[in-house]
Amino acid sequence: MEPCFLTAAAAAARIREKTLTSETLVRSCLERIAERDAEVRAWTYVDPAYAIAQARELDKRPVTGPLHGLPFGVKDSIDTADMPTTQNSPLYQGHRPAKDAGCVAVVRQCGALILGKTDTVEFATGGRKALTRNPQNLAHTPGGSSSGSSAAVGDCMVPLAFGTQTGGSHIRPAAYNGIYGLKPTWGAVTCEGAKLLSAMCDTIGWFGRSVADLILVAEAFRIRDLVAQKAVTAKGLKVAVCKTPYWNRAEPAARTALATAVERLQKAGANVEELDLPSRFGSLYESQMTLMRGEGGVAFLPELLVHGDRLHVQFREMAENKHAITGAMMTQAYDLAADCRKAFDAMFESFDVVLTPSAPGEAPEGLHTTEDWVFNSMWTVLHVPCLAIPCTKGPNGLPVGIQLVGPRYSDARLLTIAAAAAPVIDAAAGQSDPSATG
Amino acid sequence: MEPCFLTAAAAAARIREKTLTSETLVRSCLERIAERDAEVRAWTYVDPAYAIAQARELDKRPVTGPLHGLPFGVKDSIDTADMPTTQNSPLYQGHRPAKDAGCVAVVRQCGALILGKTDTVEFATGGRKALTRNPQNLAHTPGGSSSGSSAAVGDCMVPLAFGTQTGGSHIRPAAYNGIYGLKPTWGAVTCEGAKLLSAMCDTIGWFGRSVADLILVAEAFRIRDLVAQKAVTAKGLKVAVCKTPYWNRAEPAARTALATAVERLQKAGANVEELDLPSRFGSLYESQMTLMRGEGGVAFLPELLVHGDRLHVQFREMAENKHAITGAMMTQAYDLAADCRKAFDAMFESFDVVLTPSAPGEAPEGLHTTEDWVFNSMWTVLHVPCLAIPCTKGPNGLPVGIQLVGPRYSDARLLTIAAAAAPVIDAAAGQSDPSATG
Repeated sequence: MEPCFLTAAAAAARIREKTLTSETLVRSCLERIAERDAEVRAWTYVDPAYAIAQARELDKRPVTGPLHGLPFGVKDSIDTADMPTTQNSPLYQGHRPAKDAGCVAVVRQCGALILGKTDTVEFATGGRKALTRNPQNLAHTPGGSSSGSSAAVGDCMVPLAFGTQTGGSHIRPAAYNGIYGLKPTWGAVTCEGAKLLSAMCDTIGWFGRSVADLILVAEAFRIRDLVAQKAVTAKGLKVAVCKTPYWNRAEPAARTALATAVERLQKAGANVEELDLPSRFGSLYESQMTLMRGEGGVAFLPELLVHGDRLHVQFREMAENKHAITGAMMTQAYDLAADCRKAFDAMFESFDVVLTPSAPGEAPEGLHTTEDWVFNSMWTVLHVPCLAIPCTKGPNGLPVGIQLVGPRYSDARLLTIAAAAAPVIDAAAGQSDPSATG
Repeated sequence: MEPCFLTAAAAAARIREKTLTSETLVRSCLERIAERDAEVRAWTYVDPAYAIAQARELDKRPVTGPLHGLPFGVKDSIDTADMPTTQNSPLYQGHRPAKDAGCVAVVRQCGALILGKTDTVEFATGGRKALTRNPQNLAHTPGGSSSGSSAAVGDCMVPLAFGTQTGGSHIRPAAYNGIYGLKPTWGAVTCEGAKLLSAMCDTIGWFGRSVADLILVAEAFRIRDLVAQKAVTAKGLKVAVCKTPYWNRAEPAARTALATAVERLQKAGANVEELDLPSRFGSLYESQMTLMRGEGGVAFLPELLVHGDRLHVQFREMAENKHAITGAMMTQAYDLAADCRKAFDAMFESFDVVLTPSAPGEAPEGLHTTEDWVFNSMWTVLHVPCLAIPCTKGPNGLPVGIQLVGPRYSDARLLTIAAAAAPVIDAAAGQSDPSATG
């Protein structure tokens, strides 16, 4: 198997055992990029010589951090000191930050090698779409705004990458690309050096091709209680299926995926019950939208004042408060979200994990339709950790996923549960990577 | 009167009327700095020639923004593209950000001239104290962490400056320096490009020497509802005096200041009642501390991994979670704060504004004692706007202030109320600046 097809966990194990060098892995990823990216367009910046030089340096050093020698993709809305950070905005072409974003510094210090920058919806928000196409069908979107990172991991051009989520920018593209993704608890990972949109919603997450991959990165971020976890089994797992207040927007493919996940979990001995959320949860989609627009207005005021009409109309509208967001609307949205956070966490008295759709269906055709985050924004504004797992294929043969959701700060527990549930839910697990369980 | 002694509002009016140039004002500020700063040590960076060149450029242009030609100080924890940003950390000496922080971009685009960087407690948090001394008595602290900004405005070296508040870093130094300060509603001003400590508490604010000064900057930030405000009078104003659950930590000077403010307001015809907060508000000090330590651990993990033992022990302890903050402690703190936010806002049905101490007393002697933020951190975590007003003098002849507090997103209303209340509360108002009401 070409090293680029290894999961991060499998590659890390081989690097530790010295049966694989970082240079070999990086060269394989670069070859994959050379072969595929003219069509997929996941990357906005890659410097092969620089990447190889870094890999050689890492190969000379003893393995210390959990990510030693692993190539990592960085969404181009996140600052990197040694690569441009363009926000996919014409206003930031060639912009060179003086300093790595906090999350980039963390993975670098844990041994990762930043392979390059991945395309994003402009400012990780709106405006210009990424040029990225779905590697499994180029006529379809990879989802967004973390378009490039999810496609690059899905297409085995890099084993790991950062995304961000304010509405549904992380979990949805994970689903559309048939990969794994963790959106951690809000506040568990520093957002310093990533473009701000909504201070109350923005969350940085990561993509991989197995739960073990996601755990490696969680180790780098010293996610709470990671070492204290005891393994669980799918047998006896108490799963609450949540169709959400937005079930009417679930396409048949998403309904099938959810039903299939339930069936597989039950077959493996899990106890599955239905979770009906109180009716006020139905307003969370709107609350998230209000916060995003209100806080977005604050975030884009500097851009408006500096760039004026050259700023994309979507950001100008936010900064000029064209959506007429009032202070009362903001406090109402903050307070509803806070009430629901507390109520949601308390529900976990009676089950272990929530199972819910990760997107309305499979990736739609066209590159202008990444927008429906109705199955994501509620969880984002609830600040809870969400973990995307591939499940079935849709009518076009594209992947359809589900997500597992836990209460706030249960990221470590959620990863442990996912490690048990993923081999059951993901029909392809174990085939695509025989070493993922190692 | 030397132009440096003019308030921002008075100077702005003269610049608009063309009876004062920005260059004359800047030269006057630079002379004041040359004369005083060897002792006060408010500034970490000033480039006189560059400041004068910028002032000349502004003098050539028509007056557009509300801050046209006004010199502005920037706390050195906030990024500036044309000046170093050192965080008062040995690890950031000479660091040059590639881009202005959002708040700096806003005031520049509104015509302000960044006069220089002001000293701060390390990372606006802890570690090294600023070298700044209280201009009114050099043996005393100016307060912190916004030490340099508050002292520079207080000593008339600059009319306006940015500070930040996570606990009490903005309002307390305003009080210790006998100046005005606004800590806006959380989220009303972008924190992009300022050092992160606590995502849920960090707020950028500004200092001036009159309420009108604070309003000028609020205009720059397009603070909600500013133009819609109707003037109010002290007569008939419904004021709720809040001694807070921490009244036992108020020194006689703070008690006298509060009583004096009440007396003056009553004499001016205000209706003053006492506000007893529900007992759970007594835990907010601890909640803020928990959030600061928990989120601070996340914020300083990159610094720990990059700099190791060279990072000051106080930040290492946070990043290594030496305070043993658990996820349950975090959610409890978030939820209590959210409950109290909603409850506090609802109280404003029966009064217009809360009057409460801004610090335990006058500025203490020594430069190592800026730490008691007990009268501030509760309001910070409540996300409410706070406005510092000077009131009396303490036993050492140093200023003692009070603060006015409103519900979330009432910043514009709070500024309007303060414009009516400040001439009553601040014995020196009107004397120090005859044009402040103009």
